[in-house]
Amino acid sequence: MALIVQKFGGTSVGSIERIRLVAGIVQKTLSSGDQVVVVVSAMAGETDRLVKLAHELSPDPPEREMDMLMSSGERVTSALLAICLNNMGIPARSMTGRQVGIKTDNVHTKARIESISSEPLAQSLEAGIVPIVAGFQGISPQENVTTLGRGGSDTTAVAIAVAIGAQRCDIYTDVTGVFTTDPNLVPQARKIDRIAYEEMLEMASLGAKVLQTRSVEFAMKYKMPVRVRSTFSDDPGTLVTEEEKGMEQIVVSGVTLDKNQAKITVSDVPDRPGLAARLFEDISGHSIIVDMIVQNIGQDQMTDISFTVPRSESRKAERIALDFSKEIGAGEIRVKEDIVKISIVGVGMRSHSGVAARMFSALAKEGINIVMISTSEIKISCLIEDRYAELSVRTLHKEFELESRSLPNGQPHLSGN
Amino acid sequence: MALIVQKFGGTSVGSIERIRLVAGIVQKTLSSGDQVVVVVSAMAGETDRLVKLAHELSPDPPEREMDMLMSSGERVTSALLAICLNNMGIPARSMTGRQVGIKTDNVHTKARIESISSEPLAQSLEAGIVPIVAGFQGISPQENVTTLGRGGSDTTAVAIAVAIGAQRCDIYTDVTGVFTTDPNLVPQARKIDRIAYEEMLEMASLGAKVLQTRSVEFAMKYKMPVRVRSTFSDDPGTLVTEEEKGMEQIVVSGVTLDKNQAKITVSDVPDRPGLAARLFEDISGHSIIVDMIVQNIGQDQMTDISFTVPRSESRKAERIALDFSKEIGAGEIRVKEDIVKISIVGVGMRSHSGVAARMFSALAKEGINIVMISTSEIKISCLIEDRYAELSVRTLHKEFELESRSLPNGQPHLSGN
Repeated sequence: MALIVQKFGGTSVGSIERIRLVAGIVQKTLSSGDQVVVVVSAMAGETDRLVKLAHELSPDPPEREMDMLMSSGERVTSALLAICLNNMGIPARSMTGRQVGIKTDNVHTKARIESISSEPLAQSLEAGIVPIVAGFQGISPQENVTTLGRGGSDTTAVAIAVAIGAQRCDIYTDVTGVFTTDPNLVPQARKIDRIAYEEMLEMASLGAKVLQTRSVEFAMKYKMPVRVRSTFSDDPGTLVTEEEKGMEQIVVSGVTLDKNQAKITVSDVPDRPGLAARLFEDISGHSIIVDMIVQNIGQDQMTDISFTVPRSESRKAERIALDFSKEIGAGEIRVKEDIVKISIVGVGMRSHSGVAARMFSALAKEGINIVMISTSEIKISCLIEDRYAELSVRTLHKEFELESRSLPNGQPHLSGN
Repeated sequence: MALIVQKFGGTSVGSIERIRLVAGIVQKTLSSGDQVVVVVSAMAGETDRLVKLAHELSPDPPEREMDMLMSSGERVTSALLAICLNNMGIPARSMTGRQVGIKTDNVHTKARIESISSEPLAQSLEAGIVPIVAGFQGISPQENVTTLGRGGSDTTAVAIAVAIGAQRCDIYTDVTGVFTTDPNLVPQARKIDRIAYEEMLEMASLGAKVLQTRSVEFAMKYKMPVRVRSTFSDDPGTLVTEEEKGMEQIVVSGVTLDKNQAKITVSDVPDRPGLAARLFEDISGHSIIVDMIVQNIGQDQMTDISFTVPRSESRKAERIALDFSKEIGAGEIRVKEDIVKISIVGVGMRSHSGVAARMFSALAKEGINIVMISTSEIKISCLIEDRYAELSVRTLHKEFELESRSLPNGQPHLSGN
């Protein structure tokens, strides 16, 4: 008998029929002898609907009010699923973030969990009542409702799994798992059976978008195994877990593409210590997240500094860079938006040399020019022109033999929906 | 400077445009120098939508879960109105039943308020922040969300007005006030400027449906003046308040019609003490509300007992009466559903004699037969055949000269919507 947290995303609870389907999964798990704590998201589209209403009333709604507004969707789903389970003869009760004892900081719309009391859930389980937790929400020190940011229900689920000492956290979604790359781009993309937390983090933050990044960080910190699987299929999904020791490691686990990039270059920056730091302080002071940074010293003690930001922030970043340039006497600002970032990810890179060279060479063979490069221990990213986006994904997916292993259950594609 | 509670019903907050309209009313009240606490209902249709979802999942959803589900609608409205007001430069914050400190008993879906802490609202007002309270909800001793029954936001508003010592509670709705009768039946129906709590209670429970009965009881108990008025008009509405002493009293204030009646007769009941009591214990034990009761002793120490119940409960009541009849050796059960109840209401009846005779005679003149009669201090009700429903309303409305007084501001009709 295991204790398992099962989290169901918005599309999994998007209709009455699907809520019934989810109740069936819970029932099946219970009848196999396991204990279950359920975490649910708002019904698909509901959060967007509420946000839209708010923005019709105000361009800049107070974040405390947004949290009050948005947290209602998960409450509805948790009550509906509890109603459905009770009707099937399974005692179940909805629980809000407050009732579970999810205490967060005071940062509305992107709060962080500070503590979870294991007692309310333990009491419910002991009484034989399945807790159906409204995900995405907690309560601030001021007793206001907070939300954990987009995808926050994943973090709720993992944090609860840690708090109650669950054996595993299952994240039910509308895809069968994590893929080697986007199956829409490469039909031969393969579902990954097992992936290390570190790889998942790189995949997620690079745009794989299956799990909220913070939930993976949380799982990694507490070594909580997380299984990503589909509500609409029996496929066992992808297990996100610790790096396997002793096995021969796959060098590259996946290829990801990020189209939301813009490159900004500040030219002719005097090569004085501290100038680059000041530029990036200015930019982060405006809450713009900088991704890649490259600096090359040229002749004459002048240097060009290039960096990438989310494309929606490029105008704002350009203005900041312009002010910076005027102030320190640098040259012109160049903005380039017709670029994408292609990355390969794999813990195996740590023990394999020549991976970067192989990547660059494969791209070069296709005539794809590399604009910027950035590397980490388990990831290599290249900025390239956007017209080569799909070609580069296919090229690297093939180069690192991601499609060549056998397909364990003939389900290489996204389940759709 | 007065302290006023303003409550806005579902149709008043049924769209983004209407929420803006409501915000304008709050703004206007504030700029006249008054302090305001706002109470809101769920957007029109939202509660019904949620109830429908629940009933698709279960014929008999647990009431605790229904409360969790239904209470979400008011939270959404309170957040949206707070967002709108803040955008207009008016500091405002949504508050849940829990945050306001509305403690109820544990009777889910029809909880009663046990206490309200005045402190959270006083703190907000002192800080110059308009509290926008989610109506209809409170919190049980077990810290579960409870709801106060249909129309419960009215009760929230009056209870808050009492708790904070407000000068008045304004209930904004989609009609301009309380009318002498249903304007759909009698175009000459007149808006009542001022009505006594007792009259309002009789009007409401008889089907006038403008205010939740419990809110009027609450207002009467604490002598809180309540003004019923329209969100969509400047009409001052109807003031529900204490009976005016010293003025010449109007004999009849209004005529109401209740079409949701069924009459059940148990014939040939032996005339032994305690038998009638047992019958009505059986019926109330099944949570059926009995309205009128008539018992006539005939010859042979036998009696017929007739009573009315809501029409939807007539089959259930018939079965109970049948069991009772078999057990005590009474005669057949007769059910009559083609009947309605017509009532006249007025505190002036207390000091005027002959009102009942005048009512019966007016009905008789139109050939309307009276099936049952029931009277109280300020109300006389007659059960009549349903084909005479509209005729009887028009007849009594005219008989008691309800249409003859001048119309103060030319708005005799329901504002629609």
